[in-house]
Amino acid sequence: MPGPTVAIVGATGAVGSVMIDILNSRENVPWGEIRLIASARSAGKKITVRGVEHTVVELSPEAFDGVDIAMFDVPDELSAQWAPVAVERGAIAVDNSGAFRMDPEVPLVVPEVNADRVHERPKGIIANPNCTTLSMMTALGALHREFGLRELVVSSYQAASGSGQEGIDRLQEEIAAVAGKQVGERAGDVAEALAAAGLLAEQTPFKAPLAMNVVPWCGSRKDDGWTSEELKVRNESRKILGIPELKVSATCVRVPVVTTHSLAVHAVFEREISVEQAHRLFEAAPSIVLQDDPAGEVFPTPAGVVGADPTYVGRVRQALDFPNTLEFFVCGDNLRKGAALNTYEIAETLVQD
Amino acid sequence: MPGPTVAIVGATGAVGSVMIDILNSRENVPWGEIRLIASARSAGKKITVRGVEHTVVELSPEAFDGVDIAMFDVPDELSAQWAPVAVERGAIAVDNSGAFRMDPEVPLVVPEVNADRVHERPKGIIANPNCTTLSMMTALGALHREFGLRELVVSSYQAASGSGQEGIDRLQEEIAAVAGKQVGERAGDVAEALAAAGLLAEQTPFKAPLAMNVVPWCGSRKDDGWTSEELKVRNESRKILGIPELKVSATCVRVPVVTTHSLAVHAVFEREISVEQAHRLFEAAPSIVLQDDPAGEVFPTPAGVVGADPTYVGRVRQALDFPNTLEFFVCGDNLRKGAALNTYEIAETLVQD
Repeated sequence: MPGPTVAIVGATGAVGSVMIDILNSRENVPWGEIRLIASARSAGKKITVRGVEHTVVELSPEAFDGVDIAMFDVPDELSAQWAPVAVERGAIAVDNSGAFRMDPEVPLVVPEVNADRVHERPKGIIANPNCTTLSMMTALGALHREFGLRELVVSSYQAASGSGQEGIDRLQEEIAAVAGKQVGERAGDVAEALAAAGLLAEQTPFKAPLAMNVVPWCGSRKDDGWTSEELKVRNESRKILGIPELKVSATCVRVPVVTTHSLAVHAVFEREISVEQAHRLFEAAPSIVLQDDPAGEVFPTPAGVVGADPTYVGRVRQALDFPNTLEFFVCGDNLRKGAALNTYEIAETLVQD
Repeated sequence: MPGPTVAIVGATGAVGSVMIDILNSRENVPWGEIRLIASARSAGKKITVRGVEHTVVELSPEAFDGVDIAMFDVPDELSAQWAPVAVERGAIAVDNSGAFRMDPEVPLVVPEVNADRVHERPKGIIANPNCTTLSMMTALGALHREFGLRELVVSSYQAASGSGQEGIDRLQEEIAAVAGKQVGERAGDVAEALAAAGLLAEQTPFKAPLAMNVVPWCGSRKDDGWTSEELKVRNESRKILGIPELKVSATCVRVPVVTTHSLAVHAVFEREISVEQAHRLFEAAPSIVLQDDPAGEVFPTPAGVVGADPTYVGRVRQALDFPNTLEFFVCGDNLRKGAALNTYEIAETLVQD
């Protein structure tokens, strides 16, 4: 019997490309057909997957005929339009956009935390969380099961590739424009160096220069001064962990890192948790690597872990003044576990069931 | 009558250079003599201050003879040794090292917050806070006076110049080494690019590559996984604000920014505080610039404010789930208000009294 047919919708984007890498490196699912779907602009492009050359086909209702699982990595409005079409044509849609995440009829799944939720999908759609939320979910899930999470205060150090290939290219261009210029010592000199290199402010996805800077604004504007990214961290964490009353405050900040989001996490639990207990839970978790040895000054950094599947955890400390509270620092590749890998793992979970 | 004599100890360092800039741009104190003091290596160097060429003199007991106020910007062990010598010779020492900050007989002063403390100086020494703590102190002081601060959870985005001129040079060299290399997409490729350019890991002040990375380790190792920088934020905040029981958790992270520290602050007060009330207090404070207009996507960034004297505050939000709690983002030049400027303002306060 041939294996199931999988489609990658948005196969030529930053996340779609990582999805193809994952299909090449993970052989555990014997997919029947692999179908690459993208916009008309990319249709016809040839991409080799598992040793076989595939031709990218244009997004259309017929493109989903015979597809068992369709993995979507496209903007919200395209997912909103096309995921239901894929379902109509018989596929289960696993969607990495924000279109369905907070829909009560769509499960929001991180397999290590709530794999059982894949069965409740009245719309035929399963959502993949936002990459920032996902970067800390396996770590928090492991602690929550034993100690009961109550509160989160989180600050992010988010990578340029959270804005896709456009973000990666812009950061690389900005770094080239400021190199050797000795800027960063006078207000606006970074922006001037970018403008001199032809990198116009109105063309950046980051709202401000990112080279030699940090930008406390990710996503779009929401009510009362919050950004969409900060509210996603709050609302998606509650849904994935199944804690509707979880208290969350997040501040999301873009940093000049290509790929891999980092988060400084202040997590309050129902009862006391020691560093040793947290270490044991992190070491026992399948998708976590503990890098935490203060004596050896060992801790994770994004440039040190980019490209890896697991979430890296370090700097685990008991808060000195807050009861039942841990501080820690996580780094997770936002294109892999933060996007393509988790989507793929949801698909694997569906196949294994 | 001639004005008071001021000495800058460490006049040729990163902070000392900013101190000389401030002496040149602020004419409000009619200093009599200005004496530049540094190590033997820099002695004899000529530096023009207020239009007059000065010769740097070597640090010695006699160098303090006739000095009224000696501003120290040297490492802890040098301050520990030499500030008492300056006092013996008749000076008041204003010290920007960590040597005396937590000494109960040494006031720790941010003039906007606790200027009155300059009079209680049984050792003749006044300490200037750590630059990370200082970056948020004027903002927190303004809110605390009206609303009573109870708890702080803080994550830092700290600039390279927190490690002095060595840190600035290293970051600039690292940026030049990675420019155009398309690194940051594979674990360790940034470190490899630095090594290929001759930038050895054992020579960095940052513990890990800083270009295209963030490093969650600032300062030295303390007990239970904490760093010196994180404990300074806690202990110095308590002392400056006069709240011995203030609850504080800090995570300190170095980012590839040349100068200006940023902090994401989660602050809990005794009573409810609205965004409007916080805005009014920030606007009324003499050393704060409010840059906070979500509708216009206006917020401060370090590259946008470096070189300026005030603390810039933005992203002010009421926490959605925590009572009496504000979130905000501050940027402060760590060499100016974070170091040289605050030291100078302490000296000004002494002269004005």
